[in-house]
Amino acid sequence: QYSSGVRKVTLIPGHGIGPEITVAVQKIFEAAKVPIEWDEVDVTAVRGPDGKMGIPQKAIDSVNANKIGLKGPLMTPVGKGYRSLNLALRKEFDLYANVRPCKSMEGIKTLYDNVDVVTIRENTEGEYSGIEHEIVDGVVQSIKLITEEASMRVAEFAFVFAKENKRKKVTAVHKANIMRMSDGLFLRCCRDVATKYPDIKFEERYLDTVCLNMVQDPAKFDVLVMPNLYGDIMSDLCSGLVGGLGLTPSGNIGKNGALFESVHGTAPAIAGKDLANPTALLLSGVMMLRHLNLHNEAEKIQRACFRVLREGRVLTPDLGGNGTCSGFTAEIIKYLDEPE
Amino acid sequence: QYSSGVRKVTLIPGHGIGPEITVAVQKIFEAAKVPIEWDEVDVTAVRGPDGKMGIPQKAIDSVNANKIGLKGPLMTPVGKGYRSLNLALRKEFDLYANVRPCKSMEGIKTLYDNVDVVTIRENTEGEYSGIEHEIVDGVVQSIKLITEEASMRVAEFAFVFAKENKRKKVTAVHKANIMRMSDGLFLRCCRDVATKYPDIKFEERYLDTVCLNMVQDPAKFDVLVMPNLYGDIMSDLCSGLVGGLGLTPSGNIGKNGALFESVHGTAPAIAGKDLANPTALLLSGVMMLRHLNLHNEAEKIQRACFRVLREGRVLTPDLGGNGTCSGFTAEIIKYLDEPE
Ligand SMILES: CC(C)[C@H](C(=O)O)[C@@H](O)C(=O)O
Ligand SMILES: CC(C)[C@H](C(=O)O)[C@@H](O)C(=O)O
Repeated sequence: QYSSGVRKVTLIPGHGIGPEITVAVQKIFEAAKVPIEWDEVDVTAVRGPDGKMGIPQKAIDSVNANKIGLKGPLMTPVGKGYRSLNLALRKEFDLYANVRPCKSMEGIKTLYDNVDVVTIRENTEGEYSGIEHEIVDGVVQSIKLITEEASMRVAEFAFVFAKENKRKKVTAVHKANIMRMSDGLFLRCCRDVATKYPDIKFEERYLDTVCLNMVQDPAKFDVLVMPNLYGDIMSDLCSGLVGGLGLTPSGNIGKNGALFESVHGTAPAIAGKDLANPTALLLSGVMMLRHLNLHNEAEKIQRACFRVLREGRVLTPDLGGNGTCSGFTAEIIKYLDEPE
Repeated sequence: QYSSGVRKVTLIPGHGIGPEITVAVQKIFEAAKVPIEWDEVDVTAVRGPDGKMGIPQKAIDSVNANKIGLKGPLMTPVGKGYRSLNLALRKEFDLYANVRPCKSMEGIKTLYDNVDVVTIRENTEGEYSGIEHEIVDGVVQSIKLITEEASMRVAEFAFVFAKENKRKKVTAVHKANIMRMSDGLFLRCCRDVATKYPDIKFEERYLDTVCLNMVQDPAKFDVLVMPNLYGDIMSDLCSGLVGGLGLTPSGNIGKNGALFESVHGTAPAIAGKDLANPTALLLSGVMMLRHLNLHNEAEKIQRACFRVLREGRVLTPDLGGNGTCSGFTAEIIKYLDEPE
């Protein structure tokens, strides 16, 4: 899918702390000699021909051309006519699978030390269909849309992911006891696909039960696949178990492109102060490198990042340290070629 | 709403471990001289005039007459034409608010020791509307229904609950960034009601954020109010933080009745073996006593139950002990009138 040699990658620094964590990632990638050429674009909402605020055409063209991107946090202005730009990007490029690995990291002290799960979230439909009506005054319906096509492809994605990453189990998360037809369809698709992967264990669990079991014993889970909204909450829950959105990466994968992003906010209060933690964006970049088959570079950067977190000398304030974004970055670069 | 003197209460022992934990509660209530007369009914699904399997008429009549009930776990047979009997009961009696307190208990070791939250769940609509269609082959929609009426009454319920229980804060949990109209309506109702209770702090938070924050720092939360499905998962998540569904109570409250229930399963594997933990049903009974204004009896039973859990000598296997249901029950009875 991607040419060898230098790859061109769309870079969306985003807003708030976005630019400074983006610079951190660029510096680390450069030091690691990652064969990437950045195509930097701005994704601040602009008014489109339809009058609605949306993604600038230049950004769309760039992702369409490069088919791969890395993105920082985006600010979506509040108000009518605005839809989340994050969602707009996922939709525009039909990035149908959202992958969020959460693994306990040494040096990041939480209540849990045995988390190693990957949430695979259907990323295009479900509760995010955007279809809503006011039937009569004070009576509103939102439509959760589940299709066989989208369910099949994300289920397939989950099993291929499990196989390629030597994972043992896929859990389909659902409420088919309540939404018998919609979640029922999703679940049947997962079952169908599961039969093609006899080496990977398959189980189905209710969403509420998974939430309960996850906080009690996350080691029960491995790869999880689920409809859009369930993935939204489950990935945040799991991220919380290992330290939060400042640390966990995310990838949105489609047939014709992929966009990797940190899913934390823009943190306007600390923007520009060299206090932001670049880990989530960096590890999203590492996921991207793996996606590009740049496994050596990915490994090297990840190892250096984990080492800096583990040693804990230059952590940023969100991690309880008094380090800076640039200091943290420099330390990672220092470790890139140093054997442990 | 309830006459003084002896109250008649519908008792639904349910299936699996239901009968034995029900006997435990009855014994403890009797020993505590609770002025209650039980009206025991069976709720095994029967085929109604419409051909569908549902709640037996006798049970419906009993709840309608007594307006209050205590219920163990129900088995819903799997298959077409069956809807959950648990849900059917909530719907039949329009029990619009589901209240689930989760508080860390001494003697119950979990990763958390500072949980004290109450989930108030809208119990009649939302994602549980039951309205689903297959639009074309492989394309299904489920309807999430949010009404101003149901949202207002559950929001009102949450604030009254907070006030009566001397709680400081109500958090409305939503995804109004995605479901702008439906969750937006729910949220506006919460805001509206909040203005009438200036002494109770009000905040609004995204569901995903609440999941993340809850596993990191549950002390951030107090009373939470939310649409049906969100309440389903949040209450299970919170229950997990304090020890699971075997320990946490639940009440379904309506204008004309209330049903208190343990929300764990029927545990067929251990049914009839005197190994079941009656705590969740007992504490649901305690909630019921408070609802009936029998505060002294409620306090006495709760204190004895917490003491037995804290001392930990006769815990049932689910809590890591090798005690029995009847032994646990006897110990609670022993402590009923004993000062600590
Ligand atoms: C920002 C928001 C629209 C988004 C979502 O709900 O998907 C976020 O929570 C996420 O998980 O990426
Ligand atoms: C049994 C099931 C239908 C029910 C629900 O989804 O509400 C349960 O999970 C609960 O929370 O009481």
